[in-house]
Amino acid sequence: MAQQDDQFKKVISHAKEYGYVFQSSEIYDGLSAVYDYGQNGVELKKNIRDYWWKSMVQMHDNIVGLDAAIFMHPTTWKASGHVDAFSDPLIDNKDSKKRYRADVLVEDYCLKIETKIEKEVKKAQKRFGDAFNKEEFVSTNPRVLGYQEKIDTILSRLGKSLEKEDLADVKLLIEELEIGCPLSGSKNWTDVKQFNLMFGTKLGASAESAMDLYLRPETAQGIFVNFLNVQKTGRMKIPFGIAQTGKAFRNEIVARQFIFRMREFEQMEMQFFIKPGTQGEWYKHWKEARMKWHLSLGMGEDNYRFHDHEKLAHYADAAADIEFKFPFGFKELEGIHSRTDFDLKAHEEHSGKKLQYFDHEDNASYTPYVLETSIGLDRMFLAVFSNSLVEEELENNTTRTVLKLPAVLAPIKAAVFPLVKKDGLPEVAKQIIDDLKYDFNVFYDEKDAVGKRYRRQDANGTPFCITVDHDTLEDKMVTIRHRDTMEQKRVLITDLAAIIDKEVNFKHWIA
Amino acid sequence: MAQQDDQFKKVISHAKEYGYVFQSSEIYDGLSAVYDYGQNGVELKKNIRDYWWKSMVQMHDNIVGLDAAIFMHPTTWKASGHVDAFSDPLIDNKDSKKRYRADVLVEDYCLKIETKIEKEVKKAQKRFGDAFNKEEFVSTNPRVLGYQEKIDTILSRLGKSLEKEDLADVKLLIEELEIGCPLSGSKNWTDVKQFNLMFGTKLGASAESAMDLYLRPETAQGIFVNFLNVQKTGRMKIPFGIAQTGKAFRNEIVARQFIFRMREFEQMEMQFFIKPGTQGEWYKHWKEARMKWHLSLGMGEDNYRFHDHEKLAHYADAAADIEFKFPFGFKELEGIHSRTDFDLKAHEEHSGKKLQYFDHEDNASYTPYVLETSIGLDRMFLAVFSNSLVEEELENNTTRTVLKLPAVLAPIKAAVFPLVKKDGLPEVAKQIIDDLKYDFNVFYDEKDAVGKRYRRQDANGTPFCITVDHDTLEDKMVTIRHRDTMEQKRVLITDLAAIIDKEVNFKHWIA
Repeated sequence: MAQQDDQFKKVISHAKEYGYVFQSSEIYDGLSAVYDYGQNGVELKKNIRDYWWKSMVQMHDNIVGLDAAIFMHPTTWKASGHVDAFSDPLIDNKDSKKRYRADVLVEDYCLKIETKIEKEVKKAQKRFGDAFNKEEFVSTNPRVLGYQEKIDTILSRLGKSLEKEDLADVKLLIEELEIGCPLSGSKNWTDVKQFNLMFGTKLGASAESAMDLYLRPETAQGIFVNFLNVQKTGRMKIPFGIAQTGKAFRNEIVARQFIFRMREFEQMEMQFFIKPGTQGEWYKHWKEARMKWHLSLGMGEDNYRFHDHEKLAHYADAAADIEFKFPFGFKELEGIHSRTDFDLKAHEEHSGKKLQYFDHEDNASYTPYVLETSIGLDRMFLAVFSNSLVEEELENNTTRTVLKLPAVLAPIKAAVFPLVKKDGLPEVAKQIIDDLKYDFNVFYDEKDAVGKRYRRQDANGTPFCITVDHDTLEDKMVTIRHRDTMEQKRVLITDLAAIIDKEVNFKHWIA
Repeated sequence: MAQQDDQFKKVISHAKEYGYVFQSSEIYDGLSAVYDYGQNGVELKKNIRDYWWKSMVQMHDNIVGLDAAIFMHPTTWKASGHVDAFSDPLIDNKDSKKRYRADVLVEDYCLKIETKIEKEVKKAQKRFGDAFNKEEFVSTNPRVLGYQEKIDTILSRLGKSLEKEDLADVKLLIEELEIGCPLSGSKNWTDVKQFNLMFGTKLGASAESAMDLYLRPETAQGIFVNFLNVQKTGRMKIPFGIAQTGKAFRNEIVARQFIFRMREFEQMEMQFFIKPGTQGEWYKHWKEARMKWHLSLGMGEDNYRFHDHEKLAHYADAAADIEFKFPFGFKELEGIHSRTDFDLKAHEEHSGKKLQYFDHEDNASYTPYVLETSIGLDRMFLAVFSNSLVEEELENNTTRTVLKLPAVLAPIKAAVFPLVKKDGLPEVAKQIIDDLKYDFNVFYDEKDAVGKRYRRQDANGTPFCITVDHDTLEDKMVTIRHRDTMEQKRVLITDLAAIIDKEVNFKHWIA
């Protein structure tokens, strides 16, 4: 755990030091759970977005894009269920004036009991030594069994109360367990209230005509309300998909873990419209296709796993997450959801407009079913960034920090150095930059010794360094060095574009 | 004027019909002054953004990118002046309950007087026929002179009152002119009040800890607050620029003209940090450089002009617009502003942090001056789209609708057709798609006669159509047709990628 924390801290500080992620409004001491992407971060984020977009839209002749506004008609969120059901149960402590998620207070209480179980286990382990069988111990020891039963009882009651929206019972549970305010210890609680996670604002100036708006909490609804517009103007035939990337906003009470859970974040979503009854096969198809997409980046099969949902959201008949091994453990990176016709039907009902598809083959109209793939762009950024950051021991017993980003995603593709700042070498280096810059994001550096410049680019994630030396003036060749292998080769200047292209071109990654 | 209106109406309906721009939340009868980009619009918008980004960031080794969040610390907007001064003077009619911009009411009153002048001119023209000299008439006719003097007096008083923030006098002016509510005619007005154009929301759930936030009304401030982060981690040396694209929000009272003035819009901004005293030369440099950028798209020199500001914003010591000839006349497309050190100084003052640059050459620290180039992405979209839409008379006396988008910006680069839906032609066409799709956004169509398919792609803005026929099976050649010239050529399938690349590649446009 401590090691994980260490690695995570390194990720956060490296992200800042190399211009990937800054705290938002840092000069004003920051804004909680909001971050800005720096000069390298914006490029990495853009490259991830492009990689997804090309794979989804450009590569599929039955998937098209969309860019719906963040502002939507408020009835959208009534239809989607967000006005009524997108909320957390909150409770205030009357003495400390602090507010908490009621369910988290209860869960934290149970975590404390679990710590007691762990203590019993450790004690027994010490006592029995090699003969200790943990599984047998926890399933037979009366004290442990008692603790476990208590946890089960509490969580089962919490689950039922939340499901029935019996918030009075959640409060009663907190009182019965004598849970105190984590800050002050006070047990003087208000009632539990549902708090909606959508950010609200007002459109228009007139008091009488002002409209209560929400910042969209998800991009998906922009696709659903435009379903017919796209289908008709694009003459799309089912099955077909609509893909979208864009910002969404959630007023999270407990927002933490760096850019993993932010109040302002970006989604990359695709809604695939299908014939009712075919959702099983398409669910299987997209689960596999999305996993294949992740693996195409070469970040290690062991870092991914599926998590099939047992408890389904109100709109879904099947759902799975693709989880990634973040520095703080396996967590959701992408969701694949079989959303049925819930959304289109809800919008039909609330708008009074038919949202149906006429199937020429079947000669019949129906409301399509929907298969969704939804990935957090910021989470994907964190997955790529944290997985790429390594410290390597070198042969000479020194270490180097390398950001082994997949080359297709790296912000800068090649750095070009003159060996020295004179003898016409900078001019040659700049000419190479001028030749390459139309096709690649390249970087010029002439400061410090070349070894130091290499290290900076390693830490920055740049796949290639190109050095111009005195021989270059004669033989028109340069030294190209690979970030990961540190291998150096002498190549013709005229071959550089092809060498770089081979490593960074989308087509060599996705195929 | 009527002709202009017609052209604008055609632009709006074509944008919808071909999947470029939809009204937001259309199934809920729309959201005023908010629009969604459809399957073709999202690609055109993306291509414009990329064209700008590559020109600014990739091509300049002293300009880097940034992606700051929409949410910023509220003090940001205190420092920038938006909390105190980003507002419109509004007035309510007590009877109709309608709200208006007070200055627009007065301006509309003056427009009515101008109509009277026009009437006099027309009358005189009729009377004098060919002998009529308009210039002489308006500068000597006593009635016209009287009208003109009245307009001048009113507008001068309005300007002075607004400048002094003497809102009581603006109300008095409205009462003296006996201006009635345009809807009801009632002259029963409230006082004039300043209405801030920023959208507000609240961050956090706790009543006591909730923070009043604004949706950013401009992206520029995200760059200023990150100035030192980028400069230090990117080891940037002055002069250098930070470029950013992103959404901004303004609660416009009078929002109209389609996507020209929206409540949610996207900016493409670059802030260039320079040594104090050099702003004159950089202002000149960026005015020229930005005009050159626009002209690179080949949309006609006559469609652009500079408009130098006489009245400057509080932060500027020089400012000019690049205006474009929209369907409704010349209007601002991009602004070039010499912002001095106003913003950095204001953030220094409000944050208590030094935002200075140490100049190694001068061995001295200073607060940099800033040169801004700021362009509305949606306006640029409208400029490109409206300018590209033409109806051509063909030799056979029919007309065709062509969207002559610059090929580098076109959503789909090539459409591939099998001449007929059999004999193995669709398979060959699809193989061509599979070969091209890694590098280009391509489109397959087999429906209707080829002539009709050509017309659809013309109206869609696709630069190339490629047709596979029976000969193709033998000679491995296809017919490639150019959108603008309608010229057809027979070429080898293996040459297609190079032919398309030559027309659509960024490098051939920007160089």
